[in-house]
Amino acid sequence: MVDVPTLVEQAREGRPRAVARLISLVEGASPQLREVMAALAPLTGGAYVVGLTGSPGVGKSTSTSALVTAYRRMGKRVGVLAVDPSSPFSGGALLGDRVRMSEHASDPGVYIRSMATRGHLGGLAWAAPQAIRVLDAAGCDVILVETVGVGQSEVEIASQADTCVVLLAPGMGDGIQAAKAGILEIGDVYVVNKADRDGADATARELNHMLGLGESRAPGDWRPPIVKTVAARGEGIDEVVEALEKHRAWMEEHGTLTDRRLHRATREVETLAVTTLRARLADLHGDRRATTLAERVVAGELDPYTAADELVAGLTEG
Amino acid sequence: MVDVPTLVEQAREGRPRAVARLISLVEGASPQLREVMAALAPLTGGAYVVGLTGSPGVGKSTSTSALVTAYRRMGKRVGVLAVDPSSPFSGGALLGDRVRMSEHASDPGVYIRSMATRGHLGGLAWAAPQAIRVLDAAGCDVILVETVGVGQSEVEIASQADTCVVLLAPGMGDGIQAAKAGILEIGDVYVVNKADRDGADATARELNHMLGLGESRAPGDWRPPIVKTVAARGEGIDEVVEALEKHRAWMEEHGTLTDRRLHRATREVETLAVTTLRARLADLHGDRRATTLAERVVAGELDPYTAADELVAGLTEG
Repeated sequence: MVDVPTLVEQAREGRPRAVARLISLVEGASPQLREVMAALAPLTGGAYVVGLTGSPGVGKSTSTSALVTAYRRMGKRVGVLAVDPSSPFSGGALLGDRVRMSEHASDPGVYIRSMATRGHLGGLAWAAPQAIRVLDAAGCDVILVETVGVGQSEVEIASQADTCVVLLAPGMGDGIQAAKAGILEIGDVYVVNKADRDGADATARELNHMLGLGESRAPGDWRPPIVKTVAARGEGIDEVVEALEKHRAWMEEHGTLTDRRLHRATREVETLAVTTLRARLADLHGDRRATTLAERVVAGELDPYTAADELVAGLTEG
Repeated sequence: MVDVPTLVEQAREGRPRAVARLISLVEGASPQLREVMAALAPLTGGAYVVGLTGSPGVGKSTSTSALVTAYRRMGKRVGVLAVDPSSPFSGGALLGDRVRMSEHASDPGVYIRSMATRGHLGGLAWAAPQAIRVLDAAGCDVILVETVGVGQSEVEIASQADTCVVLLAPGMGDGIQAAKAGILEIGDVYVVNKADRDGADATARELNHMLGLGESRAPGDWRPPIVKTVAARGEGIDEVVEALEKHRAWMEEHGTLTDRRLHRATREVETLAVTTLRARLADLHGDRRATTLAERVVAGELDPYTAADELVAGLTEG
């Protein structure tokens, strides 16, 4: 058994091995998971969580790394959670596309974690918020949650951050992709990276048009800024940080920060409740019961809804 | 209220509006959903379900269309379900990237349906099997389930078909992508499309190597064939159909077809059971209860696991 209070204490002191250990406990649904979560609860709420999303190739990893540099210069402790829902690899190791992060690997004020969610019960929705809690409790001032790729789960993760940054790059035709992925609904700050390339202005204009930023808004409404960057050279990154800080201040002024955190926690609690019920369902019936019902479904004797009702019956009546 | 028996009768006669209506009832979780599913149950099991997946740009839509043509030539009734988890659009209408399908739009022996799953309760896992049931009951001999994009859910859908076709194209560097998405574990038939392009042989060789097809296998094991096609010109499509028929015959001979259908139905029943429990959770507590618990989580008074337990308690005890 792990000595959870000591581990939490060490994580608070910024010892990376302790943070790594806690995330592993949380990711792996260890028997001590609940003890860990209970110990972390009173220590959370201090971190500012920034989600970064965008199509592959827009430079998310480079941008994240540049943001880390900027926040470190401000003396902030930074956590990075790189979530890749399609990867079977997980852990603290620096993976292939995390290479750009390696410059921060020896900085004790930065904690970087790659998280694969494939195969997890409930996927992303389940695992990422728990890892964020660990980084929060460990004293990170800023947590950058970078999602690799654009899909339903990535958008979900990013949209559950305090502030959501959507990255685009010129000439990737990602206008339509972005619209499809619902990315235009979730950005609080938009970044057109690789702005030294042809078409950067056109991308920014198209984005401006799609976001309806030209239209009038109610006074006090947040108007998502579009920032042009060349992350690989660190250009425009200070402007991104400035936009983030403005959004944070705006949220605090309007109560939006509390609303978002409440929304995030509600989703989290509901997801965990469903996970619990799913586990109890498995405990109660075992696979055999479900298989027997499935056999009748395959034979056409039973429709799947009636079969599901029978499976649930024992749980709620027993 | 819809007259379900009449609608099912009309769908069996191949009337596309009846099929569309049934899928809409199933997709929309209408109050008559259970009546529909019960009516369909004894009529299902006749269709051969083929999943098609692969990265964007490999030509899934073109390949699906070419397969439709081939099966129509054989006199088969064909259903196409194009599943796009990132799209907010759904319905029977031919969407942008479905344009290549339009040649089949006037063929009464073909039913084409686009299905968006974003925002659905339980996503793909919930909705697609129900739509497959409708097409099956409506008398489709073959159902082609095309998933747009490569992600966890797409792989899941495709791997739940009777036969799973994985498409690649030369020079897309999708070897690594494919490996990441777990695509190399799920293909029963591999297709290298756009085989008239440079690098087609290299892609096939790389695939052959990654799949370990050179290694010896137990006699009787299925050895996934790699078929080269130029779907836009219909080249190689007959070979794909032949590979599919061979795989189907192999599965029937080895009992694999029944196993897969049983596995699919088990997953379906379990998913529906969880969906039911989730709905009951919402009924029992309403959003307010979850929000109150979430408020305590945000305040650090409660960890999310304990909150989830409290949320579940009323359901299983009450």
